[in-house]
Amino acid sequence: MVKPSYANYIAPTMAHADIIVPRGGENKVAIHLIVQHVHTQLQLRGFKLRETLVNSYKDQPMPDSLHLLPPTPQIKGLHTFIRCRGTSRDEFIFYSKRLIRLVIEYALSLFPFKTTTVETPQGVLYEGKRMGSRKICGVSILRAGETMEQAICDVCKDIRIGKILIQTNRNTGEPELYYLRLPKDIKDYKVILMDATVATGAAAMMALRVLLDHDVPEENIILASLLMAEIGVHSIAYAFPKVRIVTSALDPEVNEKFYVIPGIGNFGDRYFGTEPSDDYL
Amino acid sequence: MVKPSYANYIAPTMAHADIIVPRGGENKVAIHLIVQHVHTQLQLRGFKLRETLVNSYKDQPMPDSLHLLPPTPQIKGLHTFIRCRGTSRDEFIFYSKRLIRLVIEYALSLFPFKTTTVETPQGVLYEGKRMGSRKICGVSILRAGETMEQAICDVCKDIRIGKILIQTNRNTGEPELYYLRLPKDIKDYKVILMDATVATGAAAMMALRVLLDHDVPEENIILASLLMAEIGVHSIAYAFPKVRIVTSALDPEVNEKFYVIPGIGNFGDRYFGTEPSDDYL
Amino acid sequence: MVKPSYANYIAPTMAHADIIVPRGGENKVAIHLIVQHVHTQLQLRGFKLRETLVNSYKDQPMPDSLHLLPPTPQIKGLHTFIRCRGTSRDEFIFYSKRLIRLVIEYALSLFPFKTTTVETPQGVLYEGKRMGSRKICGVSILRAGETMEQAICDVCKDIRIGKILIQTNRNTGEPELYYLRLPKDIKDYKVILMDATVATGAAAMMALRVLLDHDVPEENIILASLLMAEIGVHSIAYAFPKVRIVTSALDPEVNEKFYVIPGIGNFGDRYFGTEPSDDYL
Amino acid sequence: MVKPSYANYIAPTMAHADIIVPRGGENKVAIHLIVQHVHTQLQLRGFKLRETLVNSYKDQPMPDSLHLLPPTPQIKGLHTFIRCRGTSRDEFIFYSKRLIRLVIEYALSLFPFKTTTVETPQGVLYEGKRMGSRKICGVSILRAGETMEQAICDVCKDIRIGKILIQTNRNTGEPELYYLRLPKDIKDYKVILMDATVATGAAAMMALRVLLDHDVPEENIILASLLMAEIGVHSIAYAFPKVRIVTSALDPEVNEKFYVIPGIGNFGDRYFGTEPSDDYL
Repeated sequence: MVKPSYANYIAPTMAHADIIVPRGGENKVAIHLIVQHVHTQLQLRGFKLRETLVNSYKDQPMPDSLHLLPPTPQIKGLHTFIRCRGTSRDEFIFYSKRLIRLVIEYALSLFPFKTTTVETPQGVLYEGKRMGSRKICGVSILRAGETMEQAICDVCKDIRIGKILIQTNRNTGEPELYYLRLPKDIKDYKVILMDATVATGAAAMMALRVLLDHDVPEENIILASLLMAEIGVHSIAYAFPKVRIVTSALDPEVNEKFYVIPGIGNFGDRYFGTEPSDDYL
Repeated sequence: MVKPSYANYIAPTMAHADIIVPRGGENKVAIHLIVQHVHTQLQLRGFKLRETLVNSYKDQPMPDSLHLLPPTPQIKGLHTFIRCRGTSRDEFIFYSKRLIRLVIEYALSLFPFKTTTVETPQGVLYEGKRMGSRKICGVSILRAGETMEQAICDVCKDIRIGKILIQTNRNTGEPELYYLRLPKDIKDYKVILMDATVATGAAAMMALRVLLDHDVPEENIILASLLMAEIGVHSIAYAFPKVRIVTSALDPEVNEKFYVIPGIGNFGDRYFGTEPSDDYL
Repeated sequence: MVKPSYANYIAPTMAHADIIVPRGGENKVAIHLIVQHVHTQLQLRGFKLRETLVNSYKDQPMPDSLHLLPPTPQIKGLHTFIRCRGTSRDEFIFYSKRLIRLVIEYALSLFPFKTTTVETPQGVLYEGKRMGSRKICGVSILRAGETMEQAICDVCKDIRIGKILIQTNRNTGEPELYYLRLPKDIKDYKVILMDATVATGAAAMMALRVLLDHDVPEENIILASLLMAEIGVHSIAYAFPKVRIVTSALDPEVNEKFYVIPGIGNFGDRYFGTEPSDDYL
Repeated sequence: MVKPSYANYIAPTMAHADIIVPRGGENKVAIHLIVQHVHTQLQLRGFKLRETLVNSYKDQPMPDSLHLLPPTPQIKGLHTFIRCRGTSRDEFIFYSKRLIRLVIEYALSLFPFKTTTVETPQGVLYEGKRMGSRKICGVSILRAGETMEQAICDVCKDIRIGKILIQTNRNTGEPELYYLRLPKDIKDYKVILMDATVATGAAAMMALRVLLDHDVPEENIILASLLMAEIGVHSIAYAFPKVRIVTSALDPEVNEKFYVIPGIGNFGDRYFGTEPSDDYL
């Protein structure tokens, strides 16, 4: 009974197939390959959908979850150093580090504090503050986000550092998760998610999704960057409204290579002294 | 003529196939999937072959390309801190950094120097030395090798830093390249390749292979680690005899989970405070 | 003619002299000794006068030249760590460094900036800011002010660092200059004068006097501290109205040992781990 | 009877006096001044005596208490950078820090270690070493010795830091103690005494004398420097034979301004960017 059915119904369709899986559900090799392919295609569609979404943010006010460092001459002065194409690597690293430190301090100031009283060495009471939770961790998005690790370690004693590597598939323009290592029980931590720059926000959103998948509550996450494009902020705020977004500058555009404009160039390449490439992560 | 041939020769074999590619050479989707699969299988074979190789090193003298830091009480003292399971993360990081710095200095001392004469502020000549090449770069193997970046930046002014991520396929036990970013024209550089620990040497060998593929001469590469297993050193030295190998300690064994024994635990997890996992890279 | 004059007018007064300088203006040994003595006495008088002055500041508003860091929970949180008598040295140093960095950044933000335009790596113009003068130097008041040197070096590339040691004469309670080394042509620099704490302001005022004696204009000086007593601020602002005063906290009192209350203890002793002493500098 | 005696015996000699003290023993002002002057003159003589002593060391072998870092091309390479008069301040600081770190590590390696056994994270025993005493402190000789503090703090966790300021009296060429702050119970510590350069050794010897006066046993002290003149080493070793002396280079001469030759210039002025002066400390 199977054979005629095959001849009548299945065989004729084989000419139109991209791939044929003999032996059905037992053939794990083929099924695995197909699952990966479907996964990739779904991400691709999601990305195109998002682009449409992005255009719809035009002329909307910036979301309340955005916390922009006050644009003082000093912050603009640091941006001037690191945005200038002629800045030497030595100076680029030096002033980036300084700006990163200010961004991290600003992000930390958003966590809640409680009143406490301590006794000074002179035996007098001092009414102070203590951070509500000492369980704070940093998670860097490779490679550029790693440049922010030193600052958070200099500011939070013994802080744990997770890492996420997301790479953009060159065919699809879609971010994919390549590497992940997080502190145990990250769900109990306040998390500062770090990336040096945010363009469309695709990588940051995938990283946020990973954190939520590990049961970190949205309201416990701060995304910290040196520079963000407006559409990236809109996209992230729309998808994760309780995540606080911290940046030291907002730029208006993203170009066709997914660089922020006016921007800073490829932050990772300038910081580490590696080869400029077409890769836009 | 095609049809009968198909019925006679091809159709009967389809029952035994893992996968069938309709439309032949035009079907790029399927071909790409198959290429990846073949690639993976080849790596798997290579790994098993290597294991056989490793056993053959037993009782052989260590290779000349190995440069072990003199095992002073001080170096052993630092190992004692970081190997002890009870050491706090704070101390683990502190003493790791100190040991890393010594390893990096030792590695740098292996590069050639030339005699030069300079004039001191008192107007007197001083006959000194200068490194033959100032083109030196560091390449870290993620994640544990990144802990060595700060030391090399503290020691070589404005040094460029490349990164390689190699992950072990859990199915095959075979290392795969996931991420790569190198300085431009790396072929003109002396390269210090950094990984905190080396067990079988599989990841280090893949990283070395990547460097050679970028035309870096073997003799311009130093592989620097805090701790290596003897079989890792033998494997690397056999495959890349001109690469110099620097480490601050040699351990005799690798266990079935590919940890060095007595070892140091998972260096990356202890340093960054992340979750212990079964992953053995 | 000289001799009778001597007998009539000079010899009789010699009985009332504290010291007699034979050979007049040629006798450099004696003149130098007298100059030093007069100098010391003048300082002594100045100090007593100043104390009277201090009482007169009570209930006056704080001067305009005072720039207090915004008293955010974060700043109070750092003060809570370092003011608490039970804080370990390790944590004391860690959080002091963090607070110092914020104070230095705040101080630098007070210098004037000019608008400038640079081109980013994407070839787009960015309208930024540049500090009006790149000639900035730091001058630390030993010992506690030296703890602020690292922060200013981390923030201003290749900054020059001067040092002043002023010790309090235990007999007179008056500050005296013991050591001085300044950058050449300091008159052309903006100067950040650093001391960890300011109680009565006596040491800071002597240091400011030294800077003015080296032709640094008052308006080019910022005095930066972690903690100041109100009377210290009043005294300094009264004596040097154009010097800007930056601190991260103001305390109401100074005790009889010249410690700020509630205070922070002896900052230098806690930071360097040295013996508590009666010395109140 | 007094008056004629005065006229006959005292008045005639007054013409030859440098200073005259009316009212004899009651005149404390004048007596104090004279005591200071005599004190200075005595030091001056002592110094001249020492110079004679120094000449007697010529052609003698270097003492056993001297521990010279192995003069590798790398160490010579670092000296080449910092000795060259044309080296920029940025590079001078960078390479000085690197050399200082090596000197400090070398000094620490001279302290005794004990064998100990720890358990690694894999549950295997490791036979290691631990420093016999964890009570180690650093004492820097101001100003140039302070440049070595960061390195010792990076290498010894929570180390206590004492400071000594010795200035050379310009009239006498003799060192005088101006400032001192040491860890409590310093007699129970191993002490690393730090100065960047040692010429005649006068300042270092005064600092060593201060440590002995605080009951630190000679054999618990290591004097660490970047550069020493041979006569300085001889003098120190002669006066304090149990103090171990560590340096990264030995120079043959000291010039009439007490600079080491070929030397490094004024280390403090080059490091901190201050004004070159005639002062030779």
